[in-house]
Amino acid sequence: MDDPRWLSPQEQRAWRAHLAAHRLLSHQLDRDLQDSGLSLNDYEILVNLSESPDHRMRMSELADATIQSRSRLSHQISRMEAAGLVTRMNCEDDRRGTFAVLTDHGWTTIQKVAPGHVFSVRSHFIELMTPEQVTALEEIYKPIIAHLQAIRPAR
Amino acid sequence: MDDPRWLSPQEQRAWRAHLAAHRLLSHQLDRDLQDSGLSLNDYEILVNLSESPDHRMRMSELADATIQSRSRLSHQISRMEAAGLVTRMNCEDDRRGTFAVLTDHGWTTIQKVAPGHVFSVRSHFIELMTPEQVTALEEIYKPIIAHLQAIRPAR
Repeated sequence: MDDPRWLSPQEQRAWRAHLAAHRLLSHQLDRDLQDSGLSLNDYEILVNLSESPDHRMRMSELADATIQSRSRLSHQISRMEAAGLVTRMNCEDDRRGTFAVLTDHGWTTIQKVAPGHVFSVRSHFIELMTPEQVTALEEIYKPIIAHLQAIRPAR
Repeated sequence: MDDPRWLSPQEQRAWRAHLAAHRLLSHQLDRDLQDSGLSLNDYEILVNLSESPDHRMRMSELADATIQSRSRLSHQISRMEAAGLVTRMNCEDDRRGTFAVLTDHGWTTIQKVAPGHVFSVRSHFIELMTPEQVTALEEIYKPIIAHLQAIRPAR
């Protein structure tokens, strides 16, 4: 570490662009969701549950799918439970823990909010790229995600 | 909004890859910084101050540079002040508000921590791309960042 290989100007611009784009985008999407009372994190959880069989997922699976710790997810689910969007459920014949389940209110909420959210993602992200860039972005991130998933500590 | 243009599978993969890469990467960089007692956000603030004349920036400039609200930055600076990394300072001949200033401890900390952090950014991000992809990533994000900065509400 005595003679660190600092980032080149180009590498630094790419790294800072990734950070800035993500931060600006998540602020904008949160603002666009504001009227619905959902945060971007809430939205992501509702989508995951709505795409699962019986609209439910194990808490551990949901934590993996949304890339956060069990304890952080647990706080978030408590807030969403208070808002009537999800409930927790213990499955009698399955000792592997608690499920998060979409409520009817959660299901109508995600159906109502999804079109506007997709419109936001389109206008602030997808439509500012060429189709080739959309493909390139996935290609760029695929090995980075695989690497980071592989070294991720057990949770 | 009655007939939303849902994302195509390719568009959805690109969007989710952006989100997943950012979340995994920020968790990993936070873990790599853990021994230093800094979070990725702390690090970013120290870098911004260390690159500024006299190691200081107006709070409003620092909030812009790190893309966060004044109130969120203010809480963060309070925590970093308690850790002895920065101080707040009012400039007598300048009524435009408070400055955040790097302390000597903040300056030695960033010098000590920077080589390891750059190594992390290299090994988990930069080195998993070809030089062409590094350039492509900046090119992809440039118009997205410009668009989002332009529509960002006044803070």
